[in-house]
Amino acid sequence: MSKVTPSLPKGTRDFGPAELRKRNYIFGIIKSVFEKYGFQPIETPAMEKLETLEGKYGEEGDKLLFRILNSGDFLKEIRSQNIEVSEDNLKKITSLVSGKGLRYDLTIPFARYVVQHQHEITFPFKRYQIQPVWRADRPQKGRYREFYQCDADVVGSDSLLNEVELILIYDEVFRKLGLDVTIKYNSRKILKAICEIANIPLSQFGDVVSAIDQFDKVGSEVALDSLKEKRFSLNQIQSLKETINYLLDGKIVMRLEDKFKKLFSENNSGLTGLDEILFIKQIIKNLSGDNLVEIASFHPRAQQIIHYHKNPDSHKIKLHFDAVLARGLDYYTGTIFEVKANNVQMGSIGGGGRYDNLTGVFGLPNVSGVGISFGVERIYDVMEELKLFDNIDLQSNTTRALFINFGGEAETKAFQYLQQLRASDIPAEIFPSNEKMKKQIGYADKKGIPYAIFVGEEELKNETLQVKILKSGEQKLYKIEEVIELLKQ
Amino acid sequence: MSKVTPSLPKGTRDFGPAELRKRNYIFGIIKSVFEKYGFQPIETPAMEKLETLEGKYGEEGDKLLFRILNSGDFLKEIRSQNIEVSEDNLKKITSLVSGKGLRYDLTIPFARYVVQHQHEITFPFKRYQIQPVWRADRPQKGRYREFYQCDADVVGSDSLLNEVELILIYDEVFRKLGLDVTIKYNSRKILKAICEIANIPLSQFGDVVSAIDQFDKVGSEVALDSLKEKRFSLNQIQSLKETINYLLDGKIVMRLEDKFKKLFSENNSGLTGLDEILFIKQIIKNLSGDNLVEIASFHPRAQQIIHYHKNPDSHKIKLHFDAVLARGLDYYTGTIFEVKANNVQMGSIGGGGRYDNLTGVFGLPNVSGVGISFGVERIYDVMEELKLFDNIDLQSNTTRALFINFGGEAETKAFQYLQQLRASDIPAEIFPSNEKMKKQIGYADKKGIPYAIFVGEEELKNETLQVKILKSGEQKLYKIEEVIELLKQ
Repeated sequence: MSKVTPSLPKGTRDFGPAELRKRNYIFGIIKSVFEKYGFQPIETPAMEKLETLEGKYGEEGDKLLFRILNSGDFLKEIRSQNIEVSEDNLKKITSLVSGKGLRYDLTIPFARYVVQHQHEITFPFKRYQIQPVWRADRPQKGRYREFYQCDADVVGSDSLLNEVELILIYDEVFRKLGLDVTIKYNSRKILKAICEIANIPLSQFGDVVSAIDQFDKVGSEVALDSLKEKRFSLNQIQSLKETINYLLDGKIVMRLEDKFKKLFSENNSGLTGLDEILFIKQIIKNLSGDNLVEIASFHPRAQQIIHYHKNPDSHKIKLHFDAVLARGLDYYTGTIFEVKANNVQMGSIGGGGRYDNLTGVFGLPNVSGVGISFGVERIYDVMEELKLFDNIDLQSNTTRALFINFGGEAETKAFQYLQQLRASDIPAEIFPSNEKMKKQIGYADKKGIPYAIFVGEEELKNETLQVKILKSGEQKLYKIEEVIELLKQ
Repeated sequence: MSKVTPSLPKGTRDFGPAELRKRNYIFGIIKSVFEKYGFQPIETPAMEKLETLEGKYGEEGDKLLFRILNSGDFLKEIRSQNIEVSEDNLKKITSLVSGKGLRYDLTIPFARYVVQHQHEITFPFKRYQIQPVWRADRPQKGRYREFYQCDADVVGSDSLLNEVELILIYDEVFRKLGLDVTIKYNSRKILKAICEIANIPLSQFGDVVSAIDQFDKVGSEVALDSLKEKRFSLNQIQSLKETINYLLDGKIVMRLEDKFKKLFSENNSGLTGLDEILFIKQIIKNLSGDNLVEIASFHPRAQQIIHYHKNPDSHKIKLHFDAVLARGLDYYTGTIFEVKANNVQMGSIGGGGRYDNLTGVFGLPNVSGVGISFGVERIYDVMEELKLFDNIDLQSNTTRALFINFGGEAETKAFQYLQQLRASDIPAEIFPSNEKMKKQIGYADKKGIPYAIFVGEEELKNETLQVKILKSGEQKLYKIEEVIELLKQ
């Protein structure tokens, strides 16, 4: 029984009512849009077998898994196999003392779910999932060891209409949250074409993706030069640079189609990627008309266009084709997405893409899927920074009125009135004991309760209630039916 | 990359859309009633420091904690301290390789929360919390290693109005779920008095509580006789039996007050407990009038009374004073509650009580609290058994209409109509590709989508939509504005 003030494991957080209401507001909007687009919720357990998790997130990911110690005498195997407790045996011992780990993301558990339940599922399967994940990362500002992910995926359909719908979902959610965003997109097929043009084999594709992913941080020159350390020839790097410079050159004023067709004239992957990008853009244009703002990175005025349209009231969907958008994760094979908030310094607040063989690792090949993710923790931070919560009524389901407790007969009567309010679905409370007025009113103030209701001697006699608006101090006598009408609003 | 069909750790479950909608329906009703009564949500992390968890759930509980393996070289300490990997050193090694564990319940994390955030909290603090907990229990029917708990507590107020409110919450939630229940209550103070009358010291109180808790399973005789094995004298046991037999004897026809006052005439704890029970009952009677059914275990017709009123349509609150209700957990000090479903064989589906010193273990003494818990997993099972979900519209936010995809121009037009429905907040979908009619209709059927909408050549020409009710086969032509009206209902 320690008397030290208790604390939390590092990188984890408590959420009090105020913060939780804001978080739930974000989740609520995302959920309602997911449902509107026909996505259905699933949940998977926090613990997965390690065989499900390991090897799916790269070597670094394996290190960041939280592993659960086996129950009972977890040392038995170490003893019976007579294994020395040395650093060299760490991996072996880990696998002997632990068979389960905490969910690292929602994608692998979803792939596992699809394979395990493939005979119950109707394809195309549109699912969403909002649950916490755990990573043993070094905690830092905005990075936690427990955080929520929020994913929507369609599996079992390779139609590009799915990509379109996911873009529309992004647009609708962020519009409803009052956030002005730019939705970037690209295709891994275009990146593949760029590699093919530079004579880079598929086995090195991942390295190129990772390098391109670093453009934002270190610039394209440094990022591409770093490929020298990864078995790339100077010729390959030079060729990559030329292709990418051509793509990004704002001085070549050409239509997107023409510029890319010229480059990819003999490359199937590139032409397919381009067709897909154009198809997606065309459908969104059909649906949005003048509300679509098209941006392309290579456009000489790309930044001005974004800037010009970055008024959240304009209700425009900003679609930015970015030929060097890469996404760090390596299972994407087709369209990729990334969402940036326009008025703040912040990494992407959403991302996703198409993967052609996610369920393959669990024995179900050739199931194409496409999905997006909302970076809820960052969305929260952006909304705080822009003070967007100030305009939102987060108190709509919370206590509307506090009955001041005068004890005795007055308490009994107040409680009866209270139950009448509640019977009309009005959230209300009575202070649980006859304390000083200051304490009771203070409770209402701190909890943000708008009305205090007094049932004293006078009111008891006349069957009335004194209702006080706490912000203005204004007060008035009512009958209970009138109070119900007043508070229902 | 194994090709074995993936599976889950034992005792854990996936929740697909159908099951999750039912679960969320239950959570939704509980949440809305909590909010109506002024309770506010909090969330705590899945992981707590082991020093927070250990020693709080008894020796058995400590064994059932899921422990997280420390990150990095977790063996370092074992090597540097040169500890032998023997069974005898299991406890020591456990504490060296693991510093965190998964939440075992919501009560201890809540106590930790209250102490840690005591200066931010306005007391009385009414909080609710709905989150999963984890126990390394042997899985069996209805018992899982990951399951949800659903708690509401008030801390910082010793007013009995809180007890009353919690009973009203139980009543309202179960009424809304369509479940007929009996709410049992008692006071630990009455149990304490029974011990004092039998000359049993406070140090042995827990054993008596545990024995009484077994009455339902093994009968009172066997349960009390088992106290012989726990340092109880035959005199003590005999005296316990006499007191309890007096309390339960249906042949002594007396008012509750008189019967108990006679027994407790010289016992403070007993009289206080009795007063509290009577106070709670009186307030509920004031509020409910004829809608209250009072039951007392010792009443000669207790069972008939329950039976007579077990019609869920009667909207009566059934309050059962049970002087040998004990509750297994040992931190309760005042009123205790337990909820039983009336028409099925099932353990309690809710329970709770008052504790006087829960936060004491974390260094904040003298904070009284009272709380209740909903056994959501069991409530789900009971509702399934009674087929209560059959009468509930779980599809209210789900897809109302599927646009059949005919490709080409028809697809474009259908998608435009679709976005018009969605703009009116009608959940709707388009099948993502132009597949065989049977497949598209099959998708709608399996997903429970009520309407299919066809936009073919004819409809394109006339700017109409063919809307088909899938259950009846009935179909009719509409304009888009009419479809919006139709589906909004």
